[in-house]
Amino acid sequence: MIIDCHGHYTTAPPQLGEYRDAQLAALEADPNHVGEKGRIDISDDELRASIEGNQLRLQRERNIDLTLFSPRASWMGHHIGNEHTSRFWTEHCNDLIRRICDLYPANFAPVCQLPQSPGVSVESSVAELHRCVEEMGFIGCNLNPDPSGGNWTGPPLFDPYWRPLFEAMCELDVPAMVHVSATCNPNFHFTSSHYLGADTTAFVQAMTSGLFDDFPTMRWIIPHGGGAVPYHWGRFKGMAEGNDGWVHLDQLMNNIFFDTCVYHQPGIDLLVDVVPADNILFGSEMLGAVKTLNPETGEGYDDTKLYIDRAHLTDDDRALIFEGNVRRVFPRLQTPTDTSGAT
Amino acid sequence: MIIDCHGHYTTAPPQLGEYRDAQLAALEADPNHVGEKGRIDISDDELRASIEGNQLRLQRERNIDLTLFSPRASWMGHHIGNEHTSRFWTEHCNDLIRRICDLYPANFAPVCQLPQSPGVSVESSVAELHRCVEEMGFIGCNLNPDPSGGNWTGPPLFDPYWRPLFEAMCELDVPAMVHVSATCNPNFHFTSSHYLGADTTAFVQAMTSGLFDDFPTMRWIIPHGGGAVPYHWGRFKGMAEGNDGWVHLDQLMNNIFFDTCVYHQPGIDLLVDVVPADNILFGSEMLGAVKTLNPETGEGYDDTKLYIDRAHLTDDDRALIFEGNVRRVFPRLQTPTDTSGAT
Repeated sequence: MIIDCHGHYTTAPPQLGEYRDAQLAALEADPNHVGEKGRIDISDDELRASIEGNQLRLQRERNIDLTLFSPRASWMGHHIGNEHTSRFWTEHCNDLIRRICDLYPANFAPVCQLPQSPGVSVESSVAELHRCVEEMGFIGCNLNPDPSGGNWTGPPLFDPYWRPLFEAMCELDVPAMVHVSATCNPNFHFTSSHYLGADTTAFVQAMTSGLFDDFPTMRWIIPHGGGAVPYHWGRFKGMAEGNDGWVHLDQLMNNIFFDTCVYHQPGIDLLVDVVPADNILFGSEMLGAVKTLNPETGEGYDDTKLYIDRAHLTDDDRALIFEGNVRRVFPRLQTPTDTSGAT
Repeated sequence: MIIDCHGHYTTAPPQLGEYRDAQLAALEADPNHVGEKGRIDISDDELRASIEGNQLRLQRERNIDLTLFSPRASWMGHHIGNEHTSRFWTEHCNDLIRRICDLYPANFAPVCQLPQSPGVSVESSVAELHRCVEEMGFIGCNLNPDPSGGNWTGPPLFDPYWRPLFEAMCELDVPAMVHVSATCNPNFHFTSSHYLGADTTAFVQAMTSGLFDDFPTMRWIIPHGGGAVPYHWGRFKGMAEGNDGWVHLDQLMNNIFFDTCVYHQPGIDLLVDVVPADNILFGSEMLGAVKTLNPETGEGYDDTKLYIDRAHLTDDDRALIFEGNVRRVFPRLQTPTDTSGAT
């Protein structure tokens, strides 16, 4: 079975964007606007139409069985608005993910976004995580390490601020993909410099702080192949060894995992060469940052399954990357096969 | 000949740090402190002692002939103080580099730091670049794309703010290594997440803006192997092809170069696999972020010459990386051999 751990609902019907636009307009008039959750009317047929020609088609074409599916990352926009608007927006985005997974239970499993907001207690995110996991069957969350949207004005992940959320993740036994959103800082472009920089930053915050000592069962997925980390594996290894109190790379491997959203063969070859196979989770991020075809090969840049198929891996390691590791990191994942096997 | 394009004077005698400490103390009492350049008394013998057991010893041990030598990057500290203190500090740091290069003309060639300061016109950097190149024989500069020290509150490199400096670089025919300094933002650790994130960020600012259209002869070296860029070459290639107005990677290759400060064999193998050999400059950053030995090999992590020696390269390409490209990117470089050949 082939499970893609990194997919976003980037193709939602226009009503979702219209809801957000109305929030933005109200916030422009009043930054303290509260409003209410309200309704977004999207029919099941509209949901199906948004998925079938996109993610579902690509799953079929690429022989991907199941995608862990979360709201569009760039639209999380935690830097926009306030704790109220962030909460209502987040609940709607997660509700839609639940509906998609109900419509296609064999194809998608739900991962939630969190209603983070700069300067606001993380308790609202804890509450939404409980709602999503306990009431709605979600199996993981996306955690934004920079809810300020590229200004990096919030507390690092080793700050006590985050502890209630980490405790909830451990209690509920769900991992987080550490994934930023859009940026309002003109120095950064969102899906390139901001995403990749944040991936590296989250890893370093863990390495330099030893925060996993306090949360030994917590699990993070660093997306986009770990940002710059595997390419600089020797740098990080040497720095950890040379700095007292830093965590050595092998000690992080119970807690930190990398996806395979690296869009060329040499990058995937490096990833599987330096990172233990136990710590790599198949992911493609489709439909995501890169939707074009490589003119030299005619293949989609983000068709990462091809690179894994061609990488120098044993069959056992390839199976770990495609399925086993995802099941281990997301123990709440139940696939139709599991269910039928249990009855 | 083997030329290391990336070395910093990280081992200066304590008088340099004491000068800076006095500035910091004065700035703490008065953030608008101006002061004067003053003197730093360091004898030639003290300079020799600071170099001979360190950079010079490693040059000999590693068979590096010449290092392009600039002030300690993490000490540039452009976010500290004001335009006056930044200028005096920078002039002293550059003066010391000149003295080192006079003491060891066969071993070091000078690259300057710039007196950048947040919110201050770039004209002071233009003036120092002229002083260093025209009066003191410097051959390049280090340009900090984030003088705010990890807060990223200044203008991106495609902003008109930077144009006078870019014009001066073109006029003087000197390249810039785009290299940040220390960070005052607790989200970032300086030599890991901040350096690597800034490397990627600078590359993306060039790719998305097309700023080199206006400066077709300007040359940047992106240090630390280009941050995350070569590892994500497919991502960047696909994004450039999929976004109107972005510059394709091959169009950037007249202007952007990567050093080899990547501290393990798989990283160097990837670098030389995906980046054209014409665009790679040998660098080791010694003595820099990683000074430890790899316990598995007994070799210094930052002994990057070993990785280049072992990489799958033709002799011609290896010679380009070790020497030819450095000479092309730094046309003002004159080595003792050139001088003796000319007489």
